[in-house]
Amino acid sequence: PAGGSGERLGGATPKQFCAVQGRPLVSYAVRAMERISWISDIIVVVSPENIETMKTIIEKYGHKRVTVVEGGITRHRSIFNGLKAFAENEFSSHLLQKPEVVIIHDAVRPFVDEDIISKVVMAAKEHGAAGAIRPLVSTVVASAADGCLDHSLERARYRASEMPQAFLFDIIYEAYQQCTDYDLDYGTECLHLALKYCKTNAKLVEGTADLWKVTYKRDLYAAESIIKDNLSQQVCVITNVKETLAQVGFLLPESLKSQIKVEAISVSLSKNDSHLQSIISGQCYNFVCVNEKRCALQETQELVDMLEKSNIPLLCPVVLISVYLDISENNSFSIGMEDLTTIKKFARETKKKNILVYGLLIQYK
Amino acid sequence: PAGGSGERLGGATPKQFCAVQGRPLVSYAVRAMERISWISDIIVVVSPENIETMKTIIEKYGHKRVTVVEGGITRHRSIFNGLKAFAENEFSSHLLQKPEVVIIHDAVRPFVDEDIISKVVMAAKEHGAAGAIRPLVSTVVASAADGCLDHSLERARYRASEMPQAFLFDIIYEAYQQCTDYDLDYGTECLHLALKYCKTNAKLVEGTADLWKVTYKRDLYAAESIIKDNLSQQVCVITNVKETLAQVGFLLPESLKSQIKVEAISVSLSKNDSHLQSIISGQCYNFVCVNEKRCALQETQELVDMLEKSNIPLLCPVVLISVYLDISENNSFSIGMEDLTTIKKFARETKKKNILVYGLLIQYK
Repeated sequence: PAGGSGERLGGATPKQFCAVQGRPLVSYAVRAMERISWISDIIVVVSPENIETMKTIIEKYGHKRVTVVEGGITRHRSIFNGLKAFAENEFSSHLLQKPEVVIIHDAVRPFVDEDIISKVVMAAKEHGAAGAIRPLVSTVVASAADGCLDHSLERARYRASEMPQAFLFDIIYEAYQQCTDYDLDYGTECLHLALKYCKTNAKLVEGTADLWKVTYKRDLYAAESIIKDNLSQQVCVITNVKETLAQVGFLLPESLKSQIKVEAISVSLSKNDSHLQSIISGQCYNFVCVNEKRCALQETQELVDMLEKSNIPLLCPVVLISVYLDISENNSFSIGMEDLTTIKKFARETKKKNILVYGLLIQYK
Repeated sequence: PAGGSGERLGGATPKQFCAVQGRPLVSYAVRAMERISWISDIIVVVSPENIETMKTIIEKYGHKRVTVVEGGITRHRSIFNGLKAFAENEFSSHLLQKPEVVIIHDAVRPFVDEDIISKVVMAAKEHGAAGAIRPLVSTVVASAADGCLDHSLERARYRASEMPQAFLFDIIYEAYQQCTDYDLDYGTECLHLALKYCKTNAKLVEGTADLWKVTYKRDLYAAESIIKDNLSQQVCVITNVKETLAQVGFLLPESLKSQIKVEAISVSLSKNDSHLQSIISGQCYNFVCVNEKRCALQETQELVDMLEKSNIPLLCPVVLISVYLDISENNSFSIGMEDLTTIKKFARETKKKNILVYGLLIQYK
């Protein structure tokens, strides 16, 4: 569901469409899902007035496997509409294949990782339903009719129900079909519907603090900072397979390791390397590419092509430092400068694609 | 209480001592309290190993009316120690005067404002106890012994219990004296103690979203952004009482109003103006001071003195733009430049006190 109005945020734009580091929040959540290869379809349920916005986002950020479905006036009605896309023709131009397990997640929880999704799905396969939980941050109290404290709950005995949740499709779909209008209008908890209408006690899975829901403006601030942090926390060092370069490819990551998460790979870029592909799609935005001087630009071009195809640069600028290691006996400064002029020209072009290429020439006798 | 270990934050420094915009979080919370003139004493309860740190913070940021008390091993034991400072000699070098109402607040909730504190205190005077509440962000669930969902709570019927809370001193002190070791070791909710041991049903007061508790690293990020935002959101325009200047003092705020919160005052700085004092202590960090050229530096000096005395510049740099309006018939550029040289020298001195003075000379014939 991505249909909320974001009243608690205090702004005109619903929070799922607010830009965080220049990109709408919902796009991060969709990206978190589409990175997982075993998720076959992603349904985004949005309110009628935001359908076009959502479609534009999907196109702009190159999201795949996404179907946009029109939401209802409440959370439960929206989720129900999303489920119908797998079961009833009217809600989608093409009927999607009914899955064994369906995951329900919020558009405003962008930091969900594969680990918790996988745990929740496996638990749902076994128990019929499962959901992520977190310890309560505050004590929960019940108030009496006069606005005074009636009782407080023992904090340790209760948990906050978070997302993602997962269900055997047949169970949650049946629960939605059977539930009352009151449930659809005033309920918010899918686990409750599975329990009430299908006698399915959901397995509760402890999640990490990352699962939190962007609710208030302060949460947008926090999301922004976390995303910024993540972007600068990983670098991929790519070296050619040749022996001398591979050594650099070993020493550089070693010395970077204490400060940043380093992925070091030694590949020939002309081959479509699957490890490199997975690093790129894992949203690495920083690359150091150590080349032999001779084939420098060609290798850089190949990496730029891969990055472009990945759609990663659409989200944030990618930084690519192309190191030219000249170890030939007769290297000369003027020839090196020529190469840098070429890379400068090249960088001017890639900048338009949001890929910032920097050239570094090292002459070593 | 400022005694937590901050385990959920994932860092070595307890969150109340983490620097937010260069200043420890606890200092913001203390500041929020000391700004309120009708609060007579502020007790900060910290764990034994942080007492010296806390004392250094109090000195560095010029906090007043603060007593540091050694905490216990749990939240309730710490709060109890804090209360004892008003009732038992052993916990404080000088016995503080027992208050009618005591406010309990967390060091990690820096954005509390006078409005909610006042509401909670008034409600406590009437009902014996009161506490701020917020709507639940997530549904609360209870798990069975097998880790599966037992039941979920209807979200609308429950609230999150936040801080501040307030109590008639005698009620909360009696509650702490009567409660069991189990309560002291495993409980967390003061309202619960007042109910259980003094039959006092606390009044629940709806608070604003600002009351949230800094718990995770993301909350520190959010606090940082909010504080940055607040700093740049208010400017105070000060003009001398003379007619021509007062007109500028009217026009400038008018044109700034659409972009920023503006306080405009027309005062003679040599008199100790209480309105200006209250603006300064309300943490305004941006000033535009429109002076007559003749007495320019003197007026600026007086404002700098006031700012220095307020301790405000200790927290964040204060920006003071001193505008010299020269409306004399025979103004000359060279004389104006002389003035600017003087202000430049002056600014170099004030910079050491964290007050950034900028001079602007306007010659108007």
